[in-house]
Amino acid sequence: MSKATQRVEPDAPPGAREQLLATASAIMREGDIVDISLSELSLRSGLNSALVKYYFGNKAGLLRALLDRDMKGIVDSVDGLLAKDWDPETRLRHHIGKVVDTFYATPYLNRLLMRLVRESDDEEAQRIADSYLAPLHRAYDKLIRDGVKQGLFRDVDPQLFYFTLTGAADRFFSARLVLKHCFDTDTLTEELRDAYRAHCTDFIMAGILKSR
Amino acid sequence: MSKATQRVEPDAPPGAREQLLATASAIMREGDIVDISLSELSLRSGLNSALVKYYFGNKAGLLRALLDRDMKGIVDSVDGLLAKDWDPETRLRHHIGKVVDTFYATPYLNRLLMRLVRESDDEEAQRIADSYLAPLHRAYDKLIRDGVKQGLFRDVDPQLFYFTLTGAADRFFSARLVLKHCFDTDTLTEELRDAYRAHCTDFIMAGILKSR
Repeated sequence: MSKATQRVEPDAPPGAREQLLATASAIMREGDIVDISLSELSLRSGLNSALVKYYFGNKAGLLRALLDRDMKGIVDSVDGLLAKDWDPETRLRHHIGKVVDTFYATPYLNRLLMRLVRESDDEEAQRIADSYLAPLHRAYDKLIRDGVKQGLFRDVDPQLFYFTLTGAADRFFSARLVLKHCFDTDTLTEELRDAYRAHCTDFIMAGILKSR
Repeated sequence: MSKATQRVEPDAPPGAREQLLATASAIMREGDIVDISLSELSLRSGLNSALVKYYFGNKAGLLRALLDRDMKGIVDSVDGLLAKDWDPETRLRHHIGKVVDTFYATPYLNRLLMRLVRESDDEEAQRIADSYLAPLHRAYDKLIRDGVKQGLFRDVDPQLFYFTLTGAADRFFSARLVLKHCFDTDTLTEELRDAYRAHCTDFIMAGILKSR
């Protein structure tokens, strides 16, 4: 378009960037999709869609920034957990609840990650892997191995455990569409989130703890 | 196009329909995608792409037929399992292995299901739910409740368990793209399948069995 639309929007309200990301997140969560229309984003946020160009370059840049926002939150939270002086069982139990809460808040996240890895060039895909997946890999290593060393956990492979836990937590909320048709249920309610959090925590702790 | 392209292909080789489905399945499995190009399908199967129109109407019809093929296989296999005179523990242990094998063979299946539920009209979405999801719902009810009644299993909600198990099994193979970038590993090897099957079976059985 004209050069003017690619320039700084001088009257961008404070927090406009964060508001665009929050609105994009809400649209994908509610619609159970991994895409957004810029016109809907503009309408719902009340912000000019030229701001997307200004802050993110284009829609792909916006999606990348959303992935960064969400994944950085997870990595920081896991780092914070590992820094705490908690025993391995308390730590893991707490973490499982957080994973369920994360997929409740951002049920699109795993699909967004897959989409961006697929659509990115090698360098960007590697950046995503190095920034988010490798740190989580290391965190799970510690999360599980500490418990194994102390004789609390069965000798479970930390990486396979990662898939078991995140797959179980993710599936519940990403199967929303099917549940709606099959059982006339919306999984994105706080009540079901709490029930699934309790189920996952009990189930997975029972799976990893040694019998006493 | 012309009427001729919509008519029966009189020299369709025997088994051409099944071969088209098998080739579409292989393309989606290898490419880690939930879509196919008709020209690639024709090239790889050695069959005229007019046969897609003849058997399935269009690409959407082909995808629907593939979902039917794969989901019917699962429902039949679960029905067969429930008909066996096995104790609940043996039955569930066997089933977990089968779920892992299913997602190894058809890693696109859950995403295909979600796509077709999303893109179908209400009637077709309801048909999918009634034909495949409701029977699995009933099967899980029996699979779990028999074990709970006999005092072998903890009192786990069968439907939440369904998400825990299928999510855990699915995630490993559908995260293939990320694993490739992050750890230079392809999850679609028989060796990793066997390792993940053993992990899932042990882990999930430990999660559900009462301590003895």
